[in-house]
Amino acid sequence: MSETAELRMMLAVALEEARAGLAEGGVPIGAALFGADGRVLGRGHNRRVQDGDPSMHAETAAFRAAGRLRGYRRTTMVTTLSPCWYCSGLVRQFGIGRVVVGEAETFHGGHDWLAEHGVEVVVLDDPDCTALMRRFIAERPEVWFEDIGE
Amino acid sequence: MSETAELRMMLAVALEEARAGLAEGGVPIGAALFGADGRVLGRGHNRRVQDGDPSMHAETAAFRAAGRLRGYRRTTMVTTLSPCWYCSGLVRQFGIGRVVVGEAETFHGGHDWLAEHGVEVVVLDDPDCTALMRRFIAERPEVWFEDIGE
Repeated sequence: MSETAELRMMLAVALEEARAGLAEGGVPIGAALFGADGRVLGRGHNRRVQDGDPSMHAETAAFRAAGRLRGYRRTTMVTTLSPCWYCSGLVRQFGIGRVVVGEAETFHGGHDWLAEHGVEVVVLDDPDCTALMRRFIAERPEVWFEDIGE
Repeated sequence: MSETAELRMMLAVALEEARAGLAEGGVPIGAALFGADGRVLGRGHNRRVQDGDPSMHAETAAFRAAGRLRGYRRTTMVTTLSPCWYCSGLVRQFGIGRVVVGEAETFHGGHDWLAEHGVEVVVLDDPDCTALMRRFIAERPEVWFEDIGE
């Protein structure tokens, strides 16, 4: 499988999570943490609305679902949206080696900062991810701005 | 009450959390989020060992316990230990106005970065906080290094 095809397959998992979040009435951002062998270690989506939990951003939810691990260098965090500072900090602290971003158009988080600090960052500019967020922000701006602390 | 006395009272809450975590067999780091009026909005401690949850650092646990809020500018996050990148990212993303750090000697996280980005940062150099961490790191280094992704 080509690298592009592999990244697209990974993104499809995150996008499935984002859509599940939307179907539950939540913020449609999804993420998954993959091992070096391409297997999913953990996956999840934003749970602010569903659980009343502001700490469960998608990346955090995926990281949490993976449980306790030693060493994240060879893992990949895939997320439908550019990671905010909170989730970027997670990636940097735990030394996650690669971040794959569905889109960074509706929100530009800390992925440049991660690249500066040695994380491999790939931005896919995926139109489905962008459309999903654009629609959510238009329909529920108050929840979106709450979710990013603005 | 003087500002110093106020900060010490706030730190006492975080330290109580850290000690509760230690008593449960966990990483002894505690935190609390305070409102502008000095009331505790949320408090918590590291839960890696207790819940097998690597995402529940002390500051995240306190933030989570506070539930959904609009606007963190006038809140204060008090933590027994310098916040790691993950928890520093939390503070920056949600615009928490002030961070009070018990100690930054056993671990130097992202508090300088937060100060550079407009967060008011106070480091108290508290000997009880330092002693607590120093002992834990000596006794359970593998859990500690796992907790900071090293």
